[in-house]
Amino acid sequence: MKKSLGAKIIVCATHVWVVGTYDKTGKPNIMTAAWGGVCCSQPPCVAVSLRKATYSYGSIGERKAFTVNIPSADAVKQTDYVGIYSGRNTDKFSVAGLTPVRGDLVDAPYIQEFPLVLECKLLHTIEIGLHTQFIGEIVDVKAEASVLGENGLPDVGRIIPFFYNPENRTYYKIGEYLGKAHSLGRVE
Amino acid sequence: MKKSLGAKIIVCATHVWVVGTYDKTGKPNIMTAAWGGVCCSQPPCVAVSLRKATYSYGSIGERKAFTVNIPSADAVKQTDYVGIYSGRNTDKFSVAGLTPVRGDLVDAPYIQEFPLVLECKLLHTIEIGLHTQFIGEIVDVKAEASVLGENGLPDVGRIIPFFYNPENRTYYKIGEYLGKAHSLGRVE
Repeated sequence: MKKSLGAKIIVCATHVWVVGTYDKTGKPNIMTAAWGGVCCSQPPCVAVSLRKATYSYGSIGERKAFTVNIPSADAVKQTDYVGIYSGRNTDKFSVAGLTPVRGDLVDAPYIQEFPLVLECKLLHTIEIGLHTQFIGEIVDVKAEASVLGENGLPDVGRIIPFFYNPENRTYYKIGEYLGKAHSLGRVE
Repeated sequence: MKKSLGAKIIVCATHVWVVGTYDKTGKPNIMTAAWGGVCCSQPPCVAVSLRKATYSYGSIGERKAFTVNIPSADAVKQTDYVGIYSGRNTDKFSVAGLTPVRGDLVDAPYIQEFPLVLECKLLHTIEIGLHTQFIGEIVDVKAEASVLGENGLPDVGRIIPFFYNPENRTYYKIGEYLGKAHSLGRVE
């Protein structure tokens, strides 16, 4: 029996991505974004949604670039910090003890200490309502050598990503392996 | 030391959502979508990206509506099945042993057996490349009474969502609780 809960964001879990930008003075900034996701395979694109009120909003518009930095569970406190405060009056990299590195291909900084980073060029800006969606083309992905598995790709068990539960405002680690996609569900 | 992996979709984990639609004859259909996410708080919106080649693509355009159905880990085989085959020549609800229920507020079916469902009205259609992004306004969320916690909201521990790892094409359950958001990272 289903119960109606109304018109709300109730989705159980979202990823936790940290968006990196340079402001107009060249100061590197980061903010945590749980609204977003992959949105296209060719060109490879991700979307992140930000409120106009955020400091990062203006920076993405000006630099036409951002990075997506995927944290490990052991960075949950730093990641939460980055989502609470504004870069308008704080150097969040410095307070969080994180190191900005200039992107190789885009005009945005990434986080040296995070295991997986995506350099993105702004492709589309979609005004939706309270949030504006920025669609960025992934022009390069960089990973720490220590998180790569034998196949040369990032290993979930070494990155240990975590998730945000919007309805209860809580974080959860990734858990147990369930099986192979495009395989478990095959029928004769 | 970071290693460049190229311009690819490498993001460690995405959610696994099942999108419900009616085709032009009124047949209910479902497909699994890992490309998508929340994209706005007001109005509450989610985005799902589909290839034009999918059967669901045309149905969303015609009916201007879809549902997002969030599966529990115990439905991983059914969910994978729904992502492999096309509704063009199969009744996926029937083969998967799932029951379509007409949405209360939108012209799309939801899955009776899944614990959490979102009814969405199409708001924007964004052509990106191989994928088209459909932005839907959430007009109602419905949850099984059995997955609600004491606060009346869905409890992650009762739903047990799972995730897709695009680079290795694998599924993982949600894991351990890490702490409260907007709290862990507070500084003086």
